[in-house]
Amino acid sequence: MVHEVLAHPGKRLRPLLSFGSAAGGPPSLEVVRGAAIVELVHLATLVHDDVLDGADQRHGAQTPNRTHGAHAAVLFGDTLFAHALVLAAEHTSPELCRLVARASRQVCSGEVCQTFARGHDQMSLEDYYRHIKLKTAELFEAACHTGALLAQRPPEHIQACALFGRHLGIAYQLYDDFVDLLQEDSKAGKTLGTDAASGKLTLPMLLERDRRGPQILQALRQGGNPREIISPETWRECFRRLDAEIAAAELALAPIEGSPSPYFLLRLTAFLREMAAKLAPQYA
Amino acid sequence: MVHEVLAHPGKRLRPLLSFGSAAGGPPSLEVVRGAAIVELVHLATLVHDDVLDGADQRHGAQTPNRTHGAHAAVLFGDTLFAHALVLAAEHTSPELCRLVARASRQVCSGEVCQTFARGHDQMSLEDYYRHIKLKTAELFEAACHTGALLAQRPPEHIQACALFGRHLGIAYQLYDDFVDLLQEDSKAGKTLGTDAASGKLTLPMLLERDRRGPQILQALRQGGNPREIISPETWRECFRRLDAEIAAAELALAPIEGSPSPYFLLRLTAFLREMAAKLAPQYA
Repeated sequence: MVHEVLAHPGKRLRPLLSFGSAAGGPPSLEVVRGAAIVELVHLATLVHDDVLDGADQRHGAQTPNRTHGAHAAVLFGDTLFAHALVLAAEHTSPELCRLVARASRQVCSGEVCQTFARGHDQMSLEDYYRHIKLKTAELFEAACHTGALLAQRPPEHIQACALFGRHLGIAYQLYDDFVDLLQEDSKAGKTLGTDAASGKLTLPMLLERDRRGPQILQALRQGGNPREIISPETWRECFRRLDAEIAAAELALAPIEGSPSPYFLLRLTAFLREMAAKLAPQYA
Repeated sequence: MVHEVLAHPGKRLRPLLSFGSAAGGPPSLEVVRGAAIVELVHLATLVHDDVLDGADQRHGAQTPNRTHGAHAAVLFGDTLFAHALVLAAEHTSPELCRLVARASRQVCSGEVCQTFARGHDQMSLEDYYRHIKLKTAELFEAACHTGALLAQRPPEHIQACALFGRHLGIAYQLYDDFVDLLQEDSKAGKTLGTDAASGKLTLPMLLERDRRGPQILQALRQGGNPREIISPETWRECFRRLDAEIAAAELALAPIEGSPSPYFLLRLTAFLREMAAKLAPQYA
């Protein structure tokens, strides 16, 4: 099962965050190990997500629940997560373990909150932002923190990278939620359009609800086309908010301008801007 | 959800192992925290087990999957597990985190192996023992190790208690597997008789298969009464093996005879002997 999931990797965004945040420090196996740990935690959550969403495809390949059934897939996710913490605990100081365990708990808490919010049509924008912060931004932040920490970068460097990670995480989750509504399955390599159908509310839905009332959620849930139901004004507001988070991430690196980390990390914000523009050139 | 699962505790065997192994050391909050961490890991695995088995009852109360659905229950188990590791990582040395993460990984690996072995009627006795060692004995061993370690007991004490835990864990899982075949639902407070139906093979089934051939597994799977299908000779052999593990656990404490730990830990072997005798007075 390990070979199968590693054979079809995603973008490896979190390791890139670790390496970018470590830049300028001595090259070290510790940093590679830290990046692997964060990616394993992420992989464990993907495996469980796919079981819970009944998703058949991920990164263009069959999901573990599709190949081996939900039973084996849940336990496989548990094992990956436990293995990540075994690796973290092998580090000489308990700080790495602390960082990884805390971020993992936040990710899980965010997913629990999101699950209980499903179908609650009155959910607030604040709740949505809280959920994506826990579910995604905490691990992005931990990836940056881990890289900078293990490369023995100074405290202001660690802090700047961590803040960058947090904002990039929010931006990335906004983008990912837009993809679920806007892109065709064939391009994404994973099962899409599941959010609306499962009662999960994302930013475009919430903003359109605030504009035109809760009946639009009903229409989406019944399989209505999100490109038609969500208005261009709402999409423009969505991409404006995405852009603001990317800008906040970039601003977070100002205190360490001139260090090698921004050189690498700013490529990731540029990449996200590019992907957003490709997804909906008319709004981004 | 936390309140609900804590309101209906089990026997709290693992914390008892931690406290028993810590006896003789200074009373300390560290030991209590260590016991709580091990119990939380156990609780997380129970929550996932009940999702995977579709079990409705545990400790005489509704399971989280029954009350909140499989989706929330899987994420809840993840959160409990992550929280256990957050607590472990707060300890000053990384040793506790290492111990807990490793034991957790073994528990999950054991469950994965067991899952893939389901329905494999040719499974060996060695496989069965390997699965229960990983799935149950590793965490019993970790409970003892954690207690003795956090109470700053000497190395030979830690080693004796850990070995005790390993044998008691195997003994306890043998007993628990017998219960699934022998006891009525009303007494157990959890859903029973699920092993045979789900294709999970346990010691009595394997021994009876070796005695009379694989068709008896088919009969059990189709809902045949295990009291009638599994012969008294097999049951006697089962209880003999259970007794041998309990004796091995007791023997493991010989090197620390006279310390306060055996006084407490031997109550647990006595308790297990008693439960076994109650379950089937004619064989135990």
